[in-house]
Amino acid sequence: MSAQFLQLQDIFIRTKEAAQSFMKILEPTIENAKEEHERLYFHHIYEEEEHRLDRLESVIPKLEYFLQNMDGQHTNNHEFVKLLQDVSLEKFGLHNFLEHLDLALFQFKSTEHENTLQGLRDLTYNDYQKSKELLQVLNDQFDGAANSAASIPTDEKEGINEHLKIEKYTTESPASRSSEPIGKPAKRLTVGSLKTKKEII
Amino acid sequence: MSAQFLQLQDIFIRTKEAAQSFMKILEPTIENAKEEHERLYFHHIYEEEEHRLDRLESVIPKLEYFLQNMDGQHTNNHEFVKLLQDVSLEKFGLHNFLEHLDLALFQFKSTEHENTLQGLRDLTYNDYQKSKELLQVLNDQFDGAANSAASIPTDEKEGINEHLKIEKYTTESPASRSSEPIGKPAKRLTVGSLKTKKEII
Repeated sequence: MSAQFLQLQDIFIRTKEAAQSFMKILEPTIENAKEEHERLYFHHIYEEEEHRLDRLESVIPKLEYFLQNMDGQHTNNHEFVKLLQDVSLEKFGLHNFLEHLDLALFQFKSTEHENTLQGLRDLTYNDYQKSKELLQVLNDQFDGAANSAASIPTDEKEGINEHLKIEKYTTESPASRSSEPIGKPAKRLTVGSLKTKKEII
Repeated sequence: MSAQFLQLQDIFIRTKEAAQSFMKILEPTIENAKEEHERLYFHHIYEEEEHRLDRLESVIPKLEYFLQNMDGQHTNNHEFVKLLQDVSLEKFGLHNFLEHLDLALFQFKSTEHENTLQGLRDLTYNDYQKSKELLQVLNDQFDGAANSAASIPTDEKEGINEHLKIEKYTTESPASRSSEPIGKPAKRLTVGSLKTKKEII
């Protein structure tokens, strides 16, 4: 399973750097926020990504350990099973990051950060899809040990009211890669949009 | 450690019900959202809380197991250490829920949901403080096994730019229990505020 772990290691290191770039964009927005609601909103997303960074910093060395110690890769090894579950949690983390980036793309539209955010978004979309494939391979190999009910986002759950899902996250079609609403004209939004964003930054 | 686990069990069952109540409030807002940004924003918070619910549903039976099997409560037991780390993650989950509720209190201000949200907010604030105390006792007892770097929110971290923190989450003074900005007049906000909220619901 070294091939899968090597790819996961790449994804985790890449998304760690992406999260740090994202947080750098958010920092002045939090610091210069003129309203408590705006400040809480960006602080909240920043904090969640910092939390994810802490988790990634914890899981990456464990991944590296099992890359060096392949003998330990079996389901009787509690530490290995724990790693598989941690990897599963980070799959959800990538989905969550994707939504953070899409929310930011609404708010930073037409600012100097738009291109960077779109790049991070595209990277994260691809890495999320890849992480799902890798988890599937690991689950097949290790009797479902990497499977976690708590790693499936609402968008991909069965038996959920479809109106609560976001279409672009439920499919893997090329169209779903766009950050723009599908079939609707692109327009500026009232909720959460920062009309004064250019002045703030 | 049964006393601590019983209290954690109470907190987790209580916050599970609170998350479900919160999600019920969010559902029509997602379904009736008029803009993609608004829909993504509420969907995103809903999805995070659903993810937390999934985790709580996984951790509560484990807590109950160790309440029935006290002999297994030692740091040589991998399952027990895993439980302590899961509990630590749920401490962060409570902090995150607190911020979701505070964000919602801005958006649902002066609606029929304000009182319910304030009640959930006060409950969650108290349960978060209590969970920190309980984790401290468990860490003292079990050699820090319940300690996780990934369970400390930005607001409580040392060495972090203070401008990135939200003051009301950094202290435990009675004033911090208020959902209103401290020392600033309460006012409606542009970012994320739903001016048409009453019409939507």
